[in-house]
Amino acid sequence: MTVIKTKSDITVRVTDSFWKRYMDVVRKEVIPYQWEALNDRLPDAVPSRAIENFKIASGEKEGEFHGFVFQDSDVAKWIEAAAYCLENEPDALLEKAVDDVIELIGRAQQTDGYLNTYFTIKEPDGRWSNLRDQHELYCAGHMIEAAVAYYHATGKKKFLDMMCRFADYIDSVFGKEAGKMQGYDGHQEIELALVKLYDATGNEKYLSLSSYFIEERGQQPHFFDLEREKRGEKRPFFWNNSYGYNQAHVPVRKQEKAVGHSVRAMYMYTAMADLAFRSNDDELKNVCGNLWGNVTKKQMYVTAGVGSMEFGEAFSTDYDLPNDTAYTETCASIGLVLWAQRMLNLKADGEYADVMERALYNGTISGMDLDGKKFFYVNPLEVHPETCEHRQDHHHVKPVRQKWFSCACCPPNLARLISSIGQYMYTVHSHTLHVNLYAGNKADVQLNGQNVSIDQQTSYPWDETVSMTITPEREDTFIIALRIPGWSRNAKVSLNGEDVDYSAFLKDGYVYINRLWKQGDRIDLVFPMPVEKIRSNPKVKENAGKLALQRGPVVYCLEEADNGKDLSSVKISENSEFTSLFQKDVLEGIVVLEGKGTKDVDSGWEDVLYQPVKKRSRDVSVKAIPYFAWCNREPGEMIVWIQEEN
Amino acid sequence: MTVIKTKSDITVRVTDSFWKRYMDVVRKEVIPYQWEALNDRLPDAVPSRAIENFKIASGEKEGEFHGFVFQDSDVAKWIEAAAYCLENEPDALLEKAVDDVIELIGRAQQTDGYLNTYFTIKEPDGRWSNLRDQHELYCAGHMIEAAVAYYHATGKKKFLDMMCRFADYIDSVFGKEAGKMQGYDGHQEIELALVKLYDATGNEKYLSLSSYFIEERGQQPHFFDLEREKRGEKRPFFWNNSYGYNQAHVPVRKQEKAVGHSVRAMYMYTAMADLAFRSNDDELKNVCGNLWGNVTKKQMYVTAGVGSMEFGEAFSTDYDLPNDTAYTETCASIGLVLWAQRMLNLKADGEYADVMERALYNGTISGMDLDGKKFFYVNPLEVHPETCEHRQDHHHVKPVRQKWFSCACCPPNLARLISSIGQYMYTVHSHTLHVNLYAGNKADVQLNGQNVSIDQQTSYPWDETVSMTITPEREDTFIIALRIPGWSRNAKVSLNGEDVDYSAFLKDGYVYINRLWKQGDRIDLVFPMPVEKIRSNPKVKENAGKLALQRGPVVYCLEEADNGKDLSSVKISENSEFTSLFQKDVLEGIVVLEGKGTKDVDSGWEDVLYQPVKKRSRDVSVKAIPYFAWCNREPGEMIVWIQEEN
Repeated sequence: MTVIKTKSDITVRVTDSFWKRYMDVVRKEVIPYQWEALNDRLPDAVPSRAIENFKIASGEKEGEFHGFVFQDSDVAKWIEAAAYCLENEPDALLEKAVDDVIELIGRAQQTDGYLNTYFTIKEPDGRWSNLRDQHELYCAGHMIEAAVAYYHATGKKKFLDMMCRFADYIDSVFGKEAGKMQGYDGHQEIELALVKLYDATGNEKYLSLSSYFIEERGQQPHFFDLEREKRGEKRPFFWNNSYGYNQAHVPVRKQEKAVGHSVRAMYMYTAMADLAFRSNDDELKNVCGNLWGNVTKKQMYVTAGVGSMEFGEAFSTDYDLPNDTAYTETCASIGLVLWAQRMLNLKADGEYADVMERALYNGTISGMDLDGKKFFYVNPLEVHPETCEHRQDHHHVKPVRQKWFSCACCPPNLARLISSIGQYMYTVHSHTLHVNLYAGNKADVQLNGQNVSIDQQTSYPWDETVSMTITPEREDTFIIALRIPGWSRNAKVSLNGEDVDYSAFLKDGYVYINRLWKQGDRIDLVFPMPVEKIRSNPKVKENAGKLALQRGPVVYCLEEADNGKDLSSVKISENSEFTSLFQKDVLEGIVVLEGKGTKDVDSGWEDVLYQPVKKRSRDVSVKAIPYFAWCNREPGEMIVWIQEEN
Repeated sequence: MTVIKTKSDITVRVTDSFWKRYMDVVRKEVIPYQWEALNDRLPDAVPSRAIENFKIASGEKEGEFHGFVFQDSDVAKWIEAAAYCLENEPDALLEKAVDDVIELIGRAQQTDGYLNTYFTIKEPDGRWSNLRDQHELYCAGHMIEAAVAYYHATGKKKFLDMMCRFADYIDSVFGKEAGKMQGYDGHQEIELALVKLYDATGNEKYLSLSSYFIEERGQQPHFFDLEREKRGEKRPFFWNNSYGYNQAHVPVRKQEKAVGHSVRAMYMYTAMADLAFRSNDDELKNVCGNLWGNVTKKQMYVTAGVGSMEFGEAFSTDYDLPNDTAYTETCASIGLVLWAQRMLNLKADGEYADVMERALYNGTISGMDLDGKKFFYVNPLEVHPETCEHRQDHHHVKPVRQKWFSCACCPPNLARLISSIGQYMYTVHSHTLHVNLYAGNKADVQLNGQNVSIDQQTSYPWDETVSMTITPEREDTFIIALRIPGWSRNAKVSLNGEDVDYSAFLKDGYVYINRLWKQGDRIDLVFPMPVEKIRSNPKVKENAGKLALQRGPVVYCLEEADNGKDLSSVKISENSEFTSLFQKDVLEGIVVLEGKGTKDVDSGWEDVLYQPVKKRSRDVSVKAIPYFAWCNREPGEMIVWIQEEN
């Protein structure tokens, strides 16, 4: 069994200009704002009632349950994000708030360990009666994740102990053994949470329970059918009458293609990779690999958005990636990051880190404005506000970010991702430190029984250079594996000022440097960042005849604010030169791309829809900004895929 | 007031190879098949119960009402189509069947003249309680249209008298006068039917009632609100809570842009043009003109499909014309033909005939297969069967025609259009005969108090030439106005073998030949039909960078059957030569277009979604068939708008 590096084996302090700014936004803006939201203190938002539900469940207040059945999870995700913030930066007031809410949660927890305000308040006899729809174990999972995070951040065990009691109770209810329920949740989440609880406590029971939930899923007779019959419910399941929505249509080991609700899928695949790694289960590893291939090579947007269909917030089918009706929920891209991180445990392969990076710089953070005040649930790759307003099949696509959602899953999920970004940067396999992401940070890594300090400095993703100083406590032989990003060509590696010809040491996207490391050894990396014109697989019909602009890991878009209306009629050539320039005062500091293109001439079309005329276009300047930064100025059209002039 | 030419002023016998074939299909296949359907004698279709409803309503049979509230209209449309067939070709058996069903309808008609099997059977006390949704006057309108058609076809007055009784009763119920209901139907249809009844009977009451329904529409306080309150109904109207769905959001004279359900809109605009013509009302004419401009210059597909949105089978907004999710109901294109015909009464302008012709050769007949056995309700301009199967916002787009619909409006509507095609060919304004359409036919027209015979011979739309022989009873001076189609360039006109320089006689798309006509005068027309590459207004974002092929009035498409899969990656150049060849054994005889194009190369993309590669394409042959004939071979992909290689 591969040695697991526990949380404490790698400690990362992020100093990066890109990510530290986002972390500060989360700490100073998102976390306080969400705390007000959870406490119903925002004058201009639908009350969350999430904290109030706990007060009612604990008996401290009279009232009815309000919100979604999964309202508790908003509190859990907020605690988890707050924990990561506290880990990065102590904050006594915040810690006090978390401690208080943990106390409150403790009072709402039932004597047998059970915790769920919806069922405690509204259906005390209805526990576990509708796993398919009611998110009971999903909420439990988020509470467990929060407890583990808070334990790591503060060393305080109270919340962790509470959640162990809850997990113990769940373990007493579910399982193969006679007298136990043989079921699983409609929304996967507990599975990955139980692995974290196992890692934090060493208690194998939690790992077994996670494995049980994964393996039971989709078995026949089908649990969702059985519980539905028990409820006396006759109507067919809303999603094409298929449990593919919940990835429960067949047992997980038989699954080869991503289907159904994309966030559910991502969380499940994450847990499967967790389990495959910890049990060294080759069959399960292969299943994960097949699903990974399907998602990232046939069903993923260039922004690393996944789940192209609004109906069921779900995967559609291979190569079906519409840009204007894309669902691409922020949470699904976040889930893809989680999964990629786990795949890197299974195998150090740059393709996982490439996708993780693509998601981090594009399809995840596009979900939040630069100030942390407004959020997208849906992240389309093409927006035409008038169409969104009029066409009903676009109603889910909002042309501007919203302040807060009644279904508030994405904002706190982004908060916890951003504030834990340090956890994604490195992976340790035995004597090898894999550097997955490039971002300014100071890390302490346990390697060969000693602490190795890494000081990474870079202005990535805007700048091409990265430098790292390696400081082991004592000279020692170990391996540092440096990821060469998939988008990079002609990357340069130098060691203490001397160029390294790494071709012989390059494997699966990482350059392996095996040597006797001395204090202060310095690695310099250069990843040339020309403006690339990306094409799509010809089977993606929506992108036929189109190009996307990418520089480094950042995918670009055109906005009406820079390029006027009718962006669909802008064309660029595969040979047109684009310049890139960092502009520190634009959109919190971004690299802007500028080049030449053409645009169809409007004249002669005032009162005509169709005519057999020669093409008439005029030269225009084209200005592109990073996709993640769109919609931070006046609202308007936006496109990622641009017509090709050829 | 302009003199109305009544039905008997123009008699057209269609001899055309194109349309006569379709008329034979309707007569031999569609009419008998639909008769079986209406009588529930089809083993493989959902029973219609439409005839049975009449039997129950007449008291001859016990049972419940079945079907939609507008089930009666299926019978009416069938009678109307059968009447046109009988007018074209006597058929004693068919006439007997119609007479029998008219007798049955007569027995179901109530003593006060009321006729509607739904209300008679199911809600005898519910008459006129929900005009918005229940299609009561809509069904009445179709019955009236059928009665007028049957009267013209056979001279038999019984059905017409029955419907006059019904119309008299309706007139006693609705109107401005005290004690009458001030309302109108949720689905316009009675308005145009009452104008036909007026034309057939000369009774001005019917014209006034039609005008009343049109003018009352959308007035405040809103009738649909008042009747809803009366029903004690609280829920908002399903369509964005807007009566724009029914074109009743504002009074019709305030309407400038087409909105809402497209068939409702077309039928209403038709009636408005009818009324504007008969009352010579300039304001109403202007309203019609503005709406015409909006529909045909901003909201119409190149196939003359209208109504781009599935939600509400409705118009979306200007220039929003998605090809893959297009709704473009067959009935809406049929409605556009009706409206165009009425606009030609208002003004002899080729643009109306151009749209009528575009609809007739493209977006209407695409609704039926070449055998008259299967039908499309929805007529998309791009079909990718796998996407239709998986993506929920495509669920209305069927990749193959269906045998019969439970909501069976389109098949009988097509049957009545095709079998009455002769009615659209000519318009008479005073001493001028306008030739709107080119198709083989022998017509008798009353002009200057005498009969003028026209013998038109052509293989249009496949062949470029048309010849007409003009035979007045005696030499006389009158005008023949020949339409020069909008798509035509360098059209030639010759008279008795001599070329006519018509530039001085061309006005609004018609060449006016004013002369002393002698028996046997011969007009020859040549409309060169090169293959045209059509562009779309740059504001139509779905067609950016794309071309459509058109030859004469016929819009073409590519099918998988001829061009393989992945049609979205086929490219043609604006300069590429296409040959056209009539192939009599292909798809019942069509002109096939063949040319060169390119297609993206698949190799190198097996396991890759995105990469910054140079364009790689290979030369391919491209074969296009008329859009209307698509899906008459093996199912597969289809596109109208083709990527441009430039």
